[in-house]
Amino acid sequence: MEMCIERYKKLDNNDIKFFVDLLGQDRVFTGENINEDYSHDELGGVSRYPDVMVEVLSAEEVSKIMVYAYKNNIPVVARGSGTGLVGSSVPIEGGIMINLTKMNNILELDEENLTLTLEPGVLLMEIAKFVESHDLFYPPDPGEKSATIGGNINTNAGGMRAVKYGVTRDYVRGLEVVLPNGNIIQVGGKVVKNSSGYSIKDLICGSEGTLGIITKVILKLLPLPKKSISLLVPFPNLNRAITTVPKIIKSKAIPTAIEFMQREVILAAEEFLGKKFPDKSSDAYLLLTFDGNSREQIEADYEKVANICLKEGAIDVYISDTDERKESVWSARGAFLEAVKATTTDMDECDVVVPRNKVAEFVKYTDELQKQFNIRIRSFGHAGDGNIHVYILKDDLSNGEWNKKLSDVFDCMYKKSEDLKGAVSGEHGIGYAKKKYISRQYGEDYIQLMRNIKLAFDPKNILNPGKVCE
Amino acid sequence: MEMCIERYKKLDNNDIKFFVDLLGQDRVFTGENINEDYSHDELGGVSRYPDVMVEVLSAEEVSKIMVYAYKNNIPVVARGSGTGLVGSSVPIEGGIMINLTKMNNILELDEENLTLTLEPGVLLMEIAKFVESHDLFYPPDPGEKSATIGGNINTNAGGMRAVKYGVTRDYVRGLEVVLPNGNIIQVGGKVVKNSSGYSIKDLICGSEGTLGIITKVILKLLPLPKKSISLLVPFPNLNRAITTVPKIIKSKAIPTAIEFMQREVILAAEEFLGKKFPDKSSDAYLLLTFDGNSREQIEADYEKVANICLKEGAIDVYISDTDERKESVWSARGAFLEAVKATTTDMDECDVVVPRNKVAEFVKYTDELQKQFNIRIRSFGHAGDGNIHVYILKDDLSNGEWNKKLSDVFDCMYKKSEDLKGAVSGEHGIGYAKKKYISRQYGEDYIQLMRNIKLAFDPKNILNPGKVCE
Repeated sequence: MEMCIERYKKLDNNDIKFFVDLLGQDRVFTGENINEDYSHDELGGVSRYPDVMVEVLSAEEVSKIMVYAYKNNIPVVARGSGTGLVGSSVPIEGGIMINLTKMNNILELDEENLTLTLEPGVLLMEIAKFVESHDLFYPPDPGEKSATIGGNINTNAGGMRAVKYGVTRDYVRGLEVVLPNGNIIQVGGKVVKNSSGYSIKDLICGSEGTLGIITKVILKLLPLPKKSISLLVPFPNLNRAITTVPKIIKSKAIPTAIEFMQREVILAAEEFLGKKFPDKSSDAYLLLTFDGNSREQIEADYEKVANICLKEGAIDVYISDTDERKESVWSARGAFLEAVKATTTDMDECDVVVPRNKVAEFVKYTDELQKQFNIRIRSFGHAGDGNIHVYILKDDLSNGEWNKKLSDVFDCMYKKSEDLKGAVSGEHGIGYAKKKYISRQYGEDYIQLMRNIKLAFDPKNILNPGKVCE
Repeated sequence: MEMCIERYKKLDNNDIKFFVDLLGQDRVFTGENINEDYSHDELGGVSRYPDVMVEVLSAEEVSKIMVYAYKNNIPVVARGSGTGLVGSSVPIEGGIMINLTKMNNILELDEENLTLTLEPGVLLMEIAKFVESHDLFYPPDPGEKSATIGGNINTNAGGMRAVKYGVTRDYVRGLEVVLPNGNIIQVGGKVVKNSSGYSIKDLICGSEGTLGIITKVILKLLPLPKKSISLLVPFPNLNRAITTVPKIIKSKAIPTAIEFMQREVILAAEEFLGKKFPDKSSDAYLLLTFDGNSREQIEADYEKVANICLKEGAIDVYISDTDERKESVWSARGAFLEAVKATTTDMDECDVVVPRNKVAEFVKYTDELQKQFNIRIRSFGHAGDGNIHVYILKDDLSNGEWNKKLSDVFDCMYKKSEDLKGAVSGEHGIGYAKKKYISRQYGEDYIQLMRNIKLAFDPKNILNPGKVCE
């Protein structure tokens, strides 16, 4: 790995001239013309401006930039909406930032193959709106709807509906990718099956912009389920709520989503949104959704689940089958991250995933850590798929105390997740912030294998250096 | 790629002694003690005996063998049931064959996480029997039920139910893998989501034994659908049958499977099985299945599809809702490969996958080739997922004529598939036999990237050399 410690070329005026000649003055930004937003993502504490930020409109432009960067040994970071939580799109070595948000066209809906072809800068909210207007469905449902599809593929984003429908990777049929040397390759396509060599498509999914730059996407769609029903189920305490989940899974009902939430997070969301939540009398809640093509079809499932919840000590089961009621509950759920953030000075998060029958044990452990370290911890997340979002809040701690406690608490949490045979990240990725923990869990041999894969794509290590495995 | 042209070490008595010391005399086979079966798979025309065949019982044994092979530069091929169709498990460089069929224990059914943990040598038919006895479901359904799960993962096998349920990769949650240098790694696990570094799990799926040896598998299961119904739909000709399929997809009904078949293949299956097919009065048929939890739930779907078929010119729609009737139809479908084989002296197959709305065009083209080259061609396959199995039959051609015609016909077919934006293999893999076609379709840059990935795992190129991308 000698190459990693070589210095990169510093950009000079000739380089800038190359970009201006290629893209025109209007799409090339340097110095004070680069908005502060581009120096970081949603992770606090890690920031650096790129030396140049360029807006691209085509794969050919991306390719020409990569050929130039490769020849001249200049680091490159691709960026979408910048909604990541682990610093993946922060240009920690400076260099070129390729902004893909203007490549935001929906190119083709193919109803005979149930595929949607689009550019990487299309936002999640636009995909949902477009496909639903055609009575079709793109199941992945991450909370952050202003993320781009390119970013979602790069973190293999999961979201609420993973219990029934799986994650982003499961809906990526094909990609066009610009490699670090500028070559443009097509991986996958509209085909439903593929056993034609190594699945580079699946490797690009979740690679956090380190192996190639996605310039076109072919998504798999499903028919839009005609009905959905949500259950809000209050429990006397969180442990009761979460330990019910494996029993639901075991019952062979298939909910679309199972989220858990606690009163304190609900109260924060009420304050943040200025809207009332339907019920907040209990300490803990499960929120479930069921979907299907008829009320009858889902009724059998949700009645079975409602009975399991009641048997396990649920206080009540509220059924939301109107759009307004569902909206009020799910909009609160969607605001949890921002709501918790608004209650404190700074925070950092842990996005572990554990087997579904270990969620209760993990959340109970974070509660113990809260007392042990005298620090405020809030959690919510995807009880149905084992992916828990735990937020450690700075409140009025000094920077010194905060950094020390945060590090200690993280060490404990990731160790616990490893003990439970979980993984460091369920859906937010590793990026810059979680490298230490992945390295600790996987060990040197495994990390070296990932580095070898990185070098197979990027022998000069110019694409998003310093992320994931180095 | 200098390493690829280096010669491998020839096995000598010291090497054999190492294996006998490690495994005992009973599990080490050399010379005439190696059964002829181990010199080939189901692909005709490519065979070689390994220098030694060893039966292993644990990952630790596999690891020790790989450490030894790596140190001594000896090629290694892993093998399951040997049911592959492209020569993937043929030891074309000789060396060591690791036979994994004795690692055939089902280790754990976890009903709270809906996972099944098992060794790689468990057969597909055993998995189906075991999980169905627990009211659970492993959806992938390749025709060859005596294949091992390890082999299925290595080809990313698809099968009949891919239309609704996807392929093998979609059901692999975790793997234990022995790398070429002997390191044992765990990838994935029981977790439902994972964004923790490059997805080595997804890269191993479909890598045809070239990147690592799978020694443990964690599969995702689903609840077993309570009802299923099959429709056998006769059409006046194949074109009518196949062009109906995109209309079914577009209708937003979701069949579990959509297969197409022609009378001549049905007649061959009747003769082969000695059993009557329910109907053979028509030239062409679609066979569809629908599954769900109640008859009502699937009725709406299959009635819609039946009406589409009739509108598109179907002669009738036969509904099979009893186990016996379904069995008679699907057992014929399951026997097509062997039945066609029994009608000729030798055959080779093309396993292309094209977008679902291009199947009719592709099959029509194979019909033209049949006339153009005056050679018998039979096809059947997965109309619902675009994966077509086309068999070119030798009949009474001389070897010279056969090789020439086969090569010419293959060239035409793979070119056509490429024009239709298809891929070389839908589910059988590339192995030894299809390297030329993948190389032609993907081009040198793409193949070089695959080779780089291969070297990231296997810098000495000792694991299953000469396959997929070299």
